[in-house]
Amino acid sequence: MAQTDLVFSCRYQRGKARLGTIRTAHGEFETPVFMPVGTQATVKSVLPHDVWETGSKIILSNAYHLYLRPGTGAVKAAGGLHRFMNWKGSTLTDSGGFQVMSLGSMVKVTDEGASFRSHIDGSEVFFSPEVSVKAQVDIGADIIMCFDQCVPYPVSKEVARKAMVRTTLWAERAKSVDVPRSQALFGIVQGSVWSDLRKESAISLSRLDFPGYAIGGLAVGEPKEDFYEIVRSTVDYLPEDKPRYLMGVGHPLDLVEGSLNGVDMFDCVLPTRNARHGRAFTFAGGLNIRNRKFASDYGPLEEGCDCLTCREFTRAYVRHLLVAGETLAATLLTIHNLRFFQRLMERIRESIREGTEERLRQSILEVYPFREG
Amino acid sequence: MAQTDLVFSCRYQRGKARLGTIRTAHGEFETPVFMPVGTQATVKSVLPHDVWETGSKIILSNAYHLYLRPGTGAVKAAGGLHRFMNWKGSTLTDSGGFQVMSLGSMVKVTDEGASFRSHIDGSEVFFSPEVSVKAQVDIGADIIMCFDQCVPYPVSKEVARKAMVRTTLWAERAKSVDVPRSQALFGIVQGSVWSDLRKESAISLSRLDFPGYAIGGLAVGEPKEDFYEIVRSTVDYLPEDKPRYLMGVGHPLDLVEGSLNGVDMFDCVLPTRNARHGRAFTFAGGLNIRNRKFASDYGPLEEGCDCLTCREFTRAYVRHLLVAGETLAATLLTIHNLRFFQRLMERIRESIREGTEERLRQSILEVYPFREG
Repeated sequence: MAQTDLVFSCRYQRGKARLGTIRTAHGEFETPVFMPVGTQATVKSVLPHDVWETGSKIILSNAYHLYLRPGTGAVKAAGGLHRFMNWKGSTLTDSGGFQVMSLGSMVKVTDEGASFRSHIDGSEVFFSPEVSVKAQVDIGADIIMCFDQCVPYPVSKEVARKAMVRTTLWAERAKSVDVPRSQALFGIVQGSVWSDLRKESAISLSRLDFPGYAIGGLAVGEPKEDFYEIVRSTVDYLPEDKPRYLMGVGHPLDLVEGSLNGVDMFDCVLPTRNARHGRAFTFAGGLNIRNRKFASDYGPLEEGCDCLTCREFTRAYVRHLLVAGETLAATLLTIHNLRFFQRLMERIRESIREGTEERLRQSILEVYPFREG
Repeated sequence: MAQTDLVFSCRYQRGKARLGTIRTAHGEFETPVFMPVGTQATVKSVLPHDVWETGSKIILSNAYHLYLRPGTGAVKAAGGLHRFMNWKGSTLTDSGGFQVMSLGSMVKVTDEGASFRSHIDGSEVFFSPEVSVKAQVDIGADIIMCFDQCVPYPVSKEVARKAMVRTTLWAERAKSVDVPRSQALFGIVQGSVWSDLRKESAISLSRLDFPGYAIGGLAVGEPKEDFYEIVRSTVDYLPEDKPRYLMGVGHPLDLVEGSLNGVDMFDCVLPTRNARHGRAFTFAGGLNIRNRKFASDYGPLEEGCDCLTCREFTRAYVRHLLVAGETLAATLLTIHNLRFFQRLMERIRESIREGTEERLRQSILEVYPFREG
């Protein structure tokens, strides 16, 4: 049994969907949960207190980015990620596997680990399962991730298989690093779009007995049907009593589909990145707030939304800020979009509790029929 | 007598320096007062609530900018500037005179007004005393300004004289526009660095009986001695019972000198603009937070400061945000710098009350010996 204080309690199940709670050293939150992304130890343009007020209880940061800047030693010296960024809730750090894949041909991956040059100062960096976990121990997030080898889409099955096998070997090595009980190390399933590879990955990782499991390497450009098929089939081979985390997902419909298929945790840059591009999520669909028609619209971004932005500001004002190039636009839209995602998760949990999943799925499908970038 | 609800009460005087209050339709504040700049109906990168928490009770916006974008009609339709930007305190709008001067050779000024092309879409714009006041009535700030002709520095005395005379003629025309009692229209003294021109301007404007007077056209590059000399001599020719506003000023030392010479109101972009460039004001001097030495400094920006940033974040974290290009750095530094300016004003008012002005002047002179850009 993994030695960790993290507690996952499944309180209700309907079909594959389930309602639960996760308790970490920094509080408890309900699942399925959406985690805003704060890559560089900040959810871009929003004060931590205002992120908290959107109903977000756990946020995600990134070991790769923090390792390069400001350095994991600096975060440790500050008292860890929570104190460094003044976030009172829980945190999770990704291992850097996904970022390393994003470097493409600029990275050299062997069984030992990944060698690449820093995107900041060009210096040589070597990331391995051990380096990544040690970095994450220094950073001190409540949930930390094994260093995995992601593959892009499309990729040959042979390449996908090798990366999956290597990811499992790396997971074993990650487990050999001392991790304090206050942190929980999750394994990551790989295997691209092949169900048999995903199955093999899930089964061999499960034998390592992690306190939680992630499905990685999805939402990288594969067809939507493949994406859903892999989520569905992979979940079946993961332990019932451990949280399941679908990495980098997602689009509103993906959150619904994922939750209904037994996923407990999600993270995605969509609410924050779209905010910076002037897009607001609402339950009536997405809005491009730059649109001229909002110039004289003195209603809130979304009628009935209880976020700070909707309580205190109008579409006309947010549009003015956007058009005038004022960064407060990103702040206001990010707050709203994060609240939208948290309200969506509330609706998902409610629909599971009340058996109204199909109605919710239809209502989201109508206004968010496809994945937006 | 000007028909306005604005009330200025001078409660204490020591030498030329004085302590008072100004009451507007949106509350009362103590003078001498510092007004943060929110040119485009936003104090850049900070939520209005967080601006208020710095102790700022009145902020400045700009008729020229709002006229061009989003249009004064749009601000009026929103219910006025306060409601548009959700600012619960008082507001002041500048007339656009200074911005027109900044356009340099791209503007044509006649007795009628100023013709120029919009910096946003190149369309032709005509600004006159009447247009500017009407725009400011639509915007609805508590204090509004006459449209003045600023001149750059250096300039010939003849050009300065003509602009000063024209500014007075324009002030008469501005007074002919209907302004609601909830707003107060201030006159603006011009005359560049010539005391006799400033005197003539102040005397003729005073005859028009405005509820307040500004000293404009300073802090545009003139030598510091000229600047102080003009402030000192101009104040002598302005009515005792009306507030005096030194526009676009200033540097910490200028706030001290201005206050001790009988100025009641100030505005300046220094705290907000410097924040965006990574500079923090403290009573021990200015800090460039990008400096590498702050990377491992886990103290607040300023020991003893009670601002949100100093209560909750460290120098190391703010530096990390700056170096990582995160906009939250500007938010945190702006909050701190605004609080510094408000604390400085508190110290100035206290020094006037207690007769310790000279000690305060020396302490500020030691750490802010010259004006910073």
